[in-house]
Amino acid sequence: MSDHIVLTSHHSQSSKEQPSNEIHWGAESPEIRGPIIASLTTPQHRNAIGTHSGAYAIYRALAVASGTLDRDHRPDFTNTAPAELIGPHPQWGDPDKIVSFDPYGHMAPAVFAKQSAAGIDIRPSIAVTKAHINMPELKEAMSAGRLKPDGEILFENGDVRVTKAAIDPVWYLPGLAKRFNINESALRRHLFEQTGGMFPELVTRFDLKVFLPPIGGMTLYCFGEISALGKEVTRVACRVHDECNGSDVFGSDICTCRPYLAHGIEVCIEMAQQGGVGLVVYNRKEGRALGEVTKFLVYNARKRQVGGDRAETYFARTECVAGVQDMRFQELMPDVFHWLGIKRIDRWASMSNMKHGALTAQGIEVVERVPIPDELIPADARVEMDAKVAAGYFAAGAPVSIEELAMAKGRELGV
Amino acid sequence: MSDHIVLTSHHSQSSKEQPSNEIHWGAESPEIRGPIIASLTTPQHRNAIGTHSGAYAIYRALAVASGTLDRDHRPDFTNTAPAELIGPHPQWGDPDKIVSFDPYGHMAPAVFAKQSAAGIDIRPSIAVTKAHINMPELKEAMSAGRLKPDGEILFENGDVRVTKAAIDPVWYLPGLAKRFNINESALRRHLFEQTGGMFPELVTRFDLKVFLPPIGGMTLYCFGEISALGKEVTRVACRVHDECNGSDVFGSDICTCRPYLAHGIEVCIEMAQQGGVGLVVYNRKEGRALGEVTKFLVYNARKRQVGGDRAETYFARTECVAGVQDMRFQELMPDVFHWLGIKRIDRWASMSNMKHGALTAQGIEVVERVPIPDELIPADARVEMDAKVAAGYFAAGAPVSIEELAMAKGRELGV
Repeated sequence: MSDHIVLTSHHSQSSKEQPSNEIHWGAESPEIRGPIIASLTTPQHRNAIGTHSGAYAIYRALAVASGTLDRDHRPDFTNTAPAELIGPHPQWGDPDKIVSFDPYGHMAPAVFAKQSAAGIDIRPSIAVTKAHINMPELKEAMSAGRLKPDGEILFENGDVRVTKAAIDPVWYLPGLAKRFNINESALRRHLFEQTGGMFPELVTRFDLKVFLPPIGGMTLYCFGEISALGKEVTRVACRVHDECNGSDVFGSDICTCRPYLAHGIEVCIEMAQQGGVGLVVYNRKEGRALGEVTKFLVYNARKRQVGGDRAETYFARTECVAGVQDMRFQELMPDVFHWLGIKRIDRWASMSNMKHGALTAQGIEVVERVPIPDELIPADARVEMDAKVAAGYFAAGAPVSIEELAMAKGRELGV
Repeated sequence: MSDHIVLTSHHSQSSKEQPSNEIHWGAESPEIRGPIIASLTTPQHRNAIGTHSGAYAIYRALAVASGTLDRDHRPDFTNTAPAELIGPHPQWGDPDKIVSFDPYGHMAPAVFAKQSAAGIDIRPSIAVTKAHINMPELKEAMSAGRLKPDGEILFENGDVRVTKAAIDPVWYLPGLAKRFNINESALRRHLFEQTGGMFPELVTRFDLKVFLPPIGGMTLYCFGEISALGKEVTRVACRVHDECNGSDVFGSDICTCRPYLAHGIEVCIEMAQQGGVGLVVYNRKEGRALGEVTKFLVYNARKRQVGGDRAETYFARTECVAGVQDMRFQELMPDVFHWLGIKRIDRWASMSNMKHGALTAQGIEVVERVPIPDELIPADARVEMDAKVAAGYFAAGAPVSIEELAMAKGRELGV
């Protein structure tokens, strides 16, 4: 290892002498698009800011620092190719349709085999595998007669057969700026400044248009035949779920996250059993992308405020602490549907108007919006539900009155 | 907003003129230790690299870029203080005991109120709240007679009363280097290089000793009286759980993660019902801190290899793809027990020798190791269990033979 540390803020002399690895985002073929190269060992090949599996790069650094991992390790991708084919779909050749991940991410080692063989460090940013999942709520749905095993998608023991894909973020910055209707240099500057100066190339290397941000990615769960997607005739059900660890894993009763997820999966299984395809998209955006520390601070403020925890002040308490009610944004969410070739979602299990609006803005039709059944909502989560309905979230029930909103319904902190 | 972008790689002139905000890590009092300052609006106050809620800073940048969030927003921390007191404990005054988060993180706004009032941007890196959780497995444990409701910790409807804390990482780099037995400059260099050049200050600003890495933090769930911790007489049960979204949320049957978590919670509830304290530590380290893309690639390689998925090649396939068998490290894991004043864990629900070794190395005694009961292991997860037992993981059953290891036990990909 050389003793010389090379800062990244400017072009090195050697990189100017290298052949161009320019990325033509949204080109009609992968050959013209070209690979995303974020090599750590051959910096002169790089055409992106950041690294693959960026959110785990810090751990890789510890592994190298402690001598466990060879810094020059190149992965052996034998037998790792996708367990199901996905695409290409026409949407992949449109630079505006998919801006937040690489549509060729799952086939990168195959599609760019020539470059790999020539020594360029090409890595997949998507992996596709198959699994059986099993959630106690689905067994309850079977006991209650809402779901019936078919031996193909859903089994007697509650097992559900899925194809799943892990998708890491790969941001095409000009496309992202366009999606948010801002200019690219403002976007790059705020990315640099609000992270405390992460990646100076954001503000010094405008020739690098692709950024691998160190944030959580998404996981796609597909119920039914993934190969049926992209066809006009295929009916699709969907739940886009933003992570809430406290509810999703531990069943915390202050919110409706896990109940909504389990309900969404039920809707997806039904659709697959009827010959359609069900999709659950799980996004790593804990606590409305504010993180769990902020989320718990807001819980305390809600429970302790004068008058108790109530729907009318639900959003206000988040804004006091975080400066915004919600930091998730849904502008990038439709990308995964474009990737799957989907133009119409027949059953959409969500009450969020932000999500619905983002789909519509991207030209994806939503036929039916499916609300969560009332009996699946925990008592302490009524505050959240009422606040959301009053704020214009979609719901099937009657509108909530002002008097209703002002009633304290959440448990106090000590109880 | 000024048009002038300031790079972070070197001291600005103005910062040299500011009064010192030096951090004295491990000092006996918070006044001497001093606050961690990662202000984005007043860079000259900063004494740390990175930002608070670092893993979500990218989303904050999008919020500012799109005009939703005021870049000068300062949080209003009214009513957000911890719902239970934690500490101080003697371990907080030892610079070697806690190196991966700020022991004063939950009380920062209160303890450093003077500095806050003087306009310094002080933020908590820990939040403590109370909740009720409810997991279907606990109802099953009640039906099976293993758990009994007491109306105080565990209720008839399966609700469990917990105190929980979200803890963001705050790394004291000299302490981290010492813990890993490497030198600080090598650590800083690898953190810089393996992240693709994230935060040049890592290699240019050795005066900044504290780093807020943009990685997931941990959540601590406490069953019973948290105020009883730190006393010799208090019996403690514990499960340290590293995130596995596919199992923890969706119940994927290829591993034992959620079954082990649910079993750990059962052990914790029992301990609390007997007057002790149960602790579940949930670490955001998906897929052995390799991330889910790598994890799914490894699943495919395991299932497709000649001879099928079997225990004898379980670790080898991970190493081919990732370069290491495991990237989690457990060296920093004991910090949370030091924070809670714990010197002895009476019941330790884990089979990992790495975790056990890390505790022992930090002088924390483990009295009894509690393995997962065999009936809680999904069939497809036998490959993982056998591989771990053969690799020297702790288990109560008989040792696994070579012949046993070579048998293909995992489901194939298409099934």
